[in-house]
Amino acid sequence: MACVIGLDFGTDTVRAIVADADGGAILGTAVRPYPRWAQGRSCDPARHRFRHHPLDYLETMEATVVEALAAAGPGVAAQVRGIAADTTGSTPVFTDARGVPLSLSAPFAEDPDAMFVLWKDHTAIAEAERINQAARSWGGADFTRYEGGIYSAEWFWAKAIHVLEASPAVAGAAVSLLELCDWIPAVLTGTDDLGRVKRSRCAAGHKAMWHAEFGGYPPDEFLGRLHPRLPALRATFGRETFTSDVPFGTLSAEWAKRLGLSRQVVVAVGAFDAHMGAVGGGVAPGRMVKIVGTSGLDMLVGPKPAGPERLVAGICGQVDGSIIPGMIGYEAGQSAFGDVFAWFARLLAWPLEAVLPGLDAADGPTRAAVAGAVAERLLPALEQAATRLPPEAHAPLALDWLNGRRTPDADQRLEGALAGLNLGTDAPRIFRALVEAAAFGSRAIVERYRAQGLAIEGTIAIGGVARKSPFVMQTLADVTDMEISVPASDQAVALGAGMFAATAAGLYPRVEAAQRAMVPPTETVYRPDPGRARWYDGQYAKYRALGGFVEGTFTKLEDRS
Amino acid sequence: MACVIGLDFGTDTVRAIVADADGGAILGTAVRPYPRWAQGRSCDPARHRFRHHPLDYLETMEATVVEALAAAGPGVAAQVRGIAADTTGSTPVFTDARGVPLSLSAPFAEDPDAMFVLWKDHTAIAEAERINQAARSWGGADFTRYEGGIYSAEWFWAKAIHVLEASPAVAGAAVSLLELCDWIPAVLTGTDDLGRVKRSRCAAGHKAMWHAEFGGYPPDEFLGRLHPRLPALRATFGRETFTSDVPFGTLSAEWAKRLGLSRQVVVAVGAFDAHMGAVGGGVAPGRMVKIVGTSGLDMLVGPKPAGPERLVAGICGQVDGSIIPGMIGYEAGQSAFGDVFAWFARLLAWPLEAVLPGLDAADGPTRAAVAGAVAERLLPALEQAATRLPPEAHAPLALDWLNGRRTPDADQRLEGALAGLNLGTDAPRIFRALVEAAAFGSRAIVERYRAQGLAIEGTIAIGGVARKSPFVMQTLADVTDMEISVPASDQAVALGAGMFAATAAGLYPRVEAAQRAMVPPTETVYRPDPGRARWYDGQYAKYRALGGFVEGTFTKLEDRS
Repeated sequence: MACVIGLDFGTDTVRAIVADADGGAILGTAVRPYPRWAQGRSCDPARHRFRHHPLDYLETMEATVVEALAAAGPGVAAQVRGIAADTTGSTPVFTDARGVPLSLSAPFAEDPDAMFVLWKDHTAIAEAERINQAARSWGGADFTRYEGGIYSAEWFWAKAIHVLEASPAVAGAAVSLLELCDWIPAVLTGTDDLGRVKRSRCAAGHKAMWHAEFGGYPPDEFLGRLHPRLPALRATFGRETFTSDVPFGTLSAEWAKRLGLSRQVVVAVGAFDAHMGAVGGGVAPGRMVKIVGTSGLDMLVGPKPAGPERLVAGICGQVDGSIIPGMIGYEAGQSAFGDVFAWFARLLAWPLEAVLPGLDAADGPTRAAVAGAVAERLLPALEQAATRLPPEAHAPLALDWLNGRRTPDADQRLEGALAGLNLGTDAPRIFRALVEAAAFGSRAIVERYRAQGLAIEGTIAIGGVARKSPFVMQTLADVTDMEISVPASDQAVALGAGMFAATAAGLYPRVEAAQRAMVPPTETVYRPDPGRARWYDGQYAKYRALGGFVEGTFTKLEDRS
Repeated sequence: MACVIGLDFGTDTVRAIVADADGGAILGTAVRPYPRWAQGRSCDPARHRFRHHPLDYLETMEATVVEALAAAGPGVAAQVRGIAADTTGSTPVFTDARGVPLSLSAPFAEDPDAMFVLWKDHTAIAEAERINQAARSWGGADFTRYEGGIYSAEWFWAKAIHVLEASPAVAGAAVSLLELCDWIPAVLTGTDDLGRVKRSRCAAGHKAMWHAEFGGYPPDEFLGRLHPRLPALRATFGRETFTSDVPFGTLSAEWAKRLGLSRQVVVAVGAFDAHMGAVGGGVAPGRMVKIVGTSGLDMLVGPKPAGPERLVAGICGQVDGSIIPGMIGYEAGQSAFGDVFAWFARLLAWPLEAVLPGLDAADGPTRAAVAGAVAERLLPALEQAATRLPPEAHAPLALDWLNGRRTPDADQRLEGALAGLNLGTDAPRIFRALVEAAAFGSRAIVERYRAQGLAIEGTIAIGGVARKSPFVMQTLADVTDMEISVPASDQAVALGAGMFAATAAGLYPRVEAAQRAMVPPTETVYRPDPGRARWYDGQYAKYRALGGFVEGTFTKLEDRS
């Protein structure tokens, strides 16, 4: 038996799985929260600042791998042949000359600007705007063209510029920048020479404007216009990038010991969670993988064209090999999906915080019981109540941009909305409207892909919401008028990393072969109801109108105030 | 000492006060809920159907008057010289040939169509639309011109047509129609001859298209086009209408006995609550009275012009003598004011109903304690939290049309909205947005009045919200950039009825004299903060934009679906 380890670095937790590389069976699994992150340190949600401390990653990585191996049983560690990590992104950090994040050195240990700038950090909106303006006006090629034509505040260079300007101390100490998905394999292999870091094609192509047509990253002439420090930083990156079927190296002595694995274990080049997750879910031409958790991601692959590549406007990029080596990988997504429902649950739970503490001290246990009941049962109760509602012409209608809009046409300034409210509008109706809005947001992405010539016949849904919420999945099927299949696994993303680990370790010649062997079977298929699908055509027109108002009129008035 | 009784028939309760006609001191007061209404009988909120049973009025009227007299102390009943009633409106009922509501006869006792159609009943939207179309196209005068130019679904003829078409049985038995404010004095005086009912100028002028210029109600030629039964019904009304300084008659033997009063007590002609409330609050030219309860009403008076009357478009009418005899009374209002805040509190309380019943049976008392705490403390807690928020450019912004829009330009199909939502939007921010929206709705009314040449220098606020909610009042002052004064009385509306009772009984020569003697003193003055007022100019522009979208685009898409 040959085994692989897949590591999935998420927003709140890291997950490790040990899988049988033959059939894909999960032998052991472990999940741990990031301890510093859980305390809210280094974050300022009101200003959309979200930072991760590198020690959170190192400590949880070691603990979860050890735990997952223990769960897999005695002898399994010796069978492990490969390890691959997927991470959130763009989640860059400034490093010293050895590729060590600055926050791992004492002077910067508590400095948020020396930590990883998490994917959902929106502090760099102004910097993204500058990049977009420069890209269109500098006189040369538009380096955003393979990234949907709009550079986002969530991405690499915008975050780099923001931190350089926000923190002179960090700017002074910074020698390079690493994406989290590049740092993890560097750590595991003990790589402290920046020139030997095999940077991820996926990260560089989707977020850092790398493209073979440009000869790599944008030239110094362009980067220097964005910020004078960028050319020197870029010079530490090299020109090449790598797909995750390529070995980054083998485990360092230190990490082999810490994890209880052989030094022969191959460490694959890293990539983003969505891209490895797409592979784990079974992405193929025409079969989109939708990752539905706090945010939504819509991942697609297509053949490399013989001639010039057709550009899909307003998505998060199209990159040769970012998902499956040898194919173009397309990424699009929604900045908030399950987060929208969680927001509503938090809203409804407000009386618990604000009103119940006024109860007598004797009611203390009461309050705990009430808070527990609400936390556990509120979203399921809303879903149950919403499922029973009939379709209604005068139901409320929502816009899902509560965390900005990523695709189509990224604009993080945009905000959510609710229309069609009357005195009879109750919580289940608003919840349904929010679910529909998230589905309308998905439909807008599917329509954008199709408008640019990409075929999509069905969707595979993975992620936290996919197996937990039949109501959301059925609504998604009805709104997009497409079959949604949900695999029988909560581990598709980490399993995708396992498939790359297996390929990089030479157990399979290609990622597609690893997929055939390891993709989990389908558990549920949601088929669109034709009547509901037609009904939703009309509702979708209202959604588009509401979005048009918010984008075209309301946001401009907001900016003026 | 001469005393008067003011009766105020509201939506949920009736209130009786006994007042000293000299200084306006309240000697006794009583409030009772309508028992059948409290059970929700005859109502269907989802379809906006709201009906009142006449027995609810009769039973509570008797009980409250007796209770208020008892509270006033021994001997006061003998001092009572006049009684006047104000009521909600337009709240009409179909009657038999003696002016008795059909629901007081056995076959119709439980038939909602034979009951009073409450002001806020919106079942007649289509009928109002027909009236509006006919008024503009029939070839003669536009009889809506003194009612703001748009006939509302909340008004007399629309409701009449709706019931005639919805209920053949009621249509077959109906001989006449009475407004509640005409029926109460008819009951008290024992008037069972329709020809002797002194119909209210206020009700007829604002809601039934009566005007001296038309020679009374619209002619049969027009009414017959709306519905063939209307001319015969109208024929039972007579041509004259009366202001409330005029005696309707004196107490009947039966009601003198039931109330413990003398048969000499003068019963004044009735009028609507808002109009008598405006008098009770101290309305005068340039001093608007705003009645802020579940809905909002903006009442103004102005001198009768020497030449032709200037028409104010899109309000709820301008009627000679509807507020103060001898002046033009202007009515405008918002279909929901406090109702908007109550809606939000209901929304936030949803988990109580849906989630807490899942707690163990042993937690029964817990649930009651929690429900009680939320019911009592939720709105005050929201207000407290909202007061502490700083002004924020990216705060949510609401549209207050959750019960349709009454003024300017009535359209009950319109619905409310919320824009500018993000993941940090919490309950206090939405609550503040709803308060601001209600204030923006008020500002739209003030601007409409002013645009048509009416001066408004300050506002007097009365009603449930005025003394209870300093946050709402200060926001109103800031948004309208006007001083808001709040009288030191919760009884201003019933006291206004008392002023009419005093005038009809001959204690004062004119209503203005009764006002000078009886209007309660000012308790609080809210002055606009100049900085906030300027800030709200910008927010109001967004409110107008959001309203323009809902009215211009969204509602049309809704109608199509």
